[in-house]
Amino acid sequence: MTESRFLKACRREAVDATPVWFMRQAGRYMAEYRAIREKHTLLEIVKQPELAAEVTLQPVRAFKVDAAILFADILLPLQPMGVDFEFVKGEGPVIHNPVRTQADVDALRPLHPEETLAHVMDAIRLLRTELVNTPLIGFSGAPFTVASYMIEGGPSRDYKTTKLMMYSAPELWHALMGKLSTALAEYLTAQINAGAQAVQLFDSWVGALSPMDYETFVLPYSKKVLDAAHSTGVPVINFGTGTATLLPLMRQAGGDVIGLDWRVPLESGWQTIGHDKAVQGNLDPVALFAPIPEMKKRIHDVLRRAEGRPGHIFNVGHGILQHTPEENVKAAVEIVHEYQA
Amino acid sequence: MTESRFLKACRREAVDATPVWFMRQAGRYMAEYRAIREKHTLLEIVKQPELAAEVTLQPVRAFKVDAAILFADILLPLQPMGVDFEFVKGEGPVIHNPVRTQADVDALRPLHPEETLAHVMDAIRLLRTELVNTPLIGFSGAPFTVASYMIEGGPSRDYKTTKLMMYSAPELWHALMGKLSTALAEYLTAQINAGAQAVQLFDSWVGALSPMDYETFVLPYSKKVLDAAHSTGVPVINFGTGTATLLPLMRQAGGDVIGLDWRVPLESGWQTIGHDKAVQGNLDPVALFAPIPEMKKRIHDVLRRAEGRPGHIFNVGHGILQHTPEENVKAAVEIVHEYQA
Repeated sequence: MTESRFLKACRREAVDATPVWFMRQAGRYMAEYRAIREKHTLLEIVKQPELAAEVTLQPVRAFKVDAAILFADILLPLQPMGVDFEFVKGEGPVIHNPVRTQADVDALRPLHPEETLAHVMDAIRLLRTELVNTPLIGFSGAPFTVASYMIEGGPSRDYKTTKLMMYSAPELWHALMGKLSTALAEYLTAQINAGAQAVQLFDSWVGALSPMDYETFVLPYSKKVLDAAHSTGVPVINFGTGTATLLPLMRQAGGDVIGLDWRVPLESGWQTIGHDKAVQGNLDPVALFAPIPEMKKRIHDVLRRAEGRPGHIFNVGHGILQHTPEENVKAAVEIVHEYQA
Repeated sequence: MTESRFLKACRREAVDATPVWFMRQAGRYMAEYRAIREKHTLLEIVKQPELAAEVTLQPVRAFKVDAAILFADILLPLQPMGVDFEFVKGEGPVIHNPVRTQADVDALRPLHPEETLAHVMDAIRLLRTELVNTPLIGFSGAPFTVASYMIEGGPSRDYKTTKLMMYSAPELWHALMGKLSTALAEYLTAQINAGAQAVQLFDSWVGALSPMDYETFVLPYSKKVLDAAHSTGVPVINFGTGTATLLPLMRQAGGDVIGLDWRVPLESGWQTIGHDKAVQGNLDPVALFAPIPEMKKRIHDVLRRAEGRPGHIFNVGHGILQHTPEENVKAAVEIVHEYQA
């Protein structure tokens, strides 16, 4: 296979057109996906390699995006580590035994992803046989974001219990993050060994933290995971939202590519990170609902801000939203590919 | 009355100690407040001047904060404008007739706050007779934040419907914001006429926007409200959260004091805004749950970052959270007042 635009851009090499993929590009906004979801729960899809692979391929076939991302969930490592959860309609994930005490942390089991998450590695191997010209991205939740679910017991507005563990029981926090970062480093490495050609670390909720707290309580653990992935030689993407003031520290944590959300004008975010890194982003996902001419204007604005140097991967600044019109996603890919600087 | 620390700091005059108050300093975390809430709904309290005044005074008496803020709700202007809502337990506000079409915008009535929100002005007048040495802050929701509730019909994670009005029906958006900013300017002016000695504009959810969207769709309307308040001569506070990349534009919009949340190190936020403005903030409200020595360390860190120039008002970066220990709030006020640079 000719090396893809996506992998070239990760390494800041010249490309014929800006590569584009979308976070959560497989999912409920696609009719094809909803048809499968009528017959299977989310976890059933994720745990059956054929189904996970099929869903992963849907947006690649439909929209000609430049990368596939494994269909999975950032909470998958929880169950093998001994933390039970389920997805409750309208509420999102509900964790039945949140991790809040030293005993809870002591009880966490090592992940052994090759065995406990063998279905993920099988899905990756299967996808590599089916994907010819499109590289496959593996991923994991970042230690902070995964810890926040473990501690809060579900989604949170203020991350109070999580931050309070940092503030009131720092040894406990560090013990949890130590175990979690080891597990997530092994998880990404296993995905790469199975064939993932790049990996993304999703620190979706890290924007809740001050830079000072990020530096003390998060950076060393994100770095451990990012370093482990980086040492394999595949490109690594370090992603978060609401990270305007965290970008210099995220750079320090690692990643060949740093994610930018729409709150940061792309050129100024890139400047802050440093032009020796690639960047990914940063369309507001709501723009994909706009009438095509308005969407096009907004896509062009992002592309213009990235002009003049290689190393930009077009993406939304956070995952595609439910009910996003499929035809707009298709048009967005074409608009990115056809853009002439 | 000797002019208060709070008002002096708003004007960047020297003070004997840093003034401190807390957003949402009256509310459910206080046992005294919960006792009143057992007998009255939130809207009953807000609509009875004696009750609103009593609740406003509770944290002033209990904690010796340097300013009182009127107990009210940013959604109060909705009903007089023709938009009905109620507070639903566990869900927050639910708006029964969201504003989404030209007909909905046309149907919005002028506010006439002196008549329709007379209870607010009565509470302010009553409070001014009871408060001797403590200045009273009036407030309003900012046009964007109030519009987001009107359009979404309640709280939102992604502000999709709101942003889509900007992107798909900009004339409609501008018509709504025009009406809303007129109403909110009148509302703040009426509060000042009734005796409010400073006012704060709460743009709590504005951090959902890119700087480009803020500039086009929000700034002119915030500016209209802030200018109207400023022209009365009382200090005006312009507050938002998640605003790291919006600060230069918020400065342009106006305000003698700009709010900073904990995501921005105070000294760098102040630098961005410019030292000719005062700043307010920026403790993470979760820090008020920490053990006192840890809380003190975090309060001192904020104060240290503000050192060397007048014009800092200590506050949390967003409202006090439910279940915050009252004794910690009391201790926080003492720690701020006792701090020696």
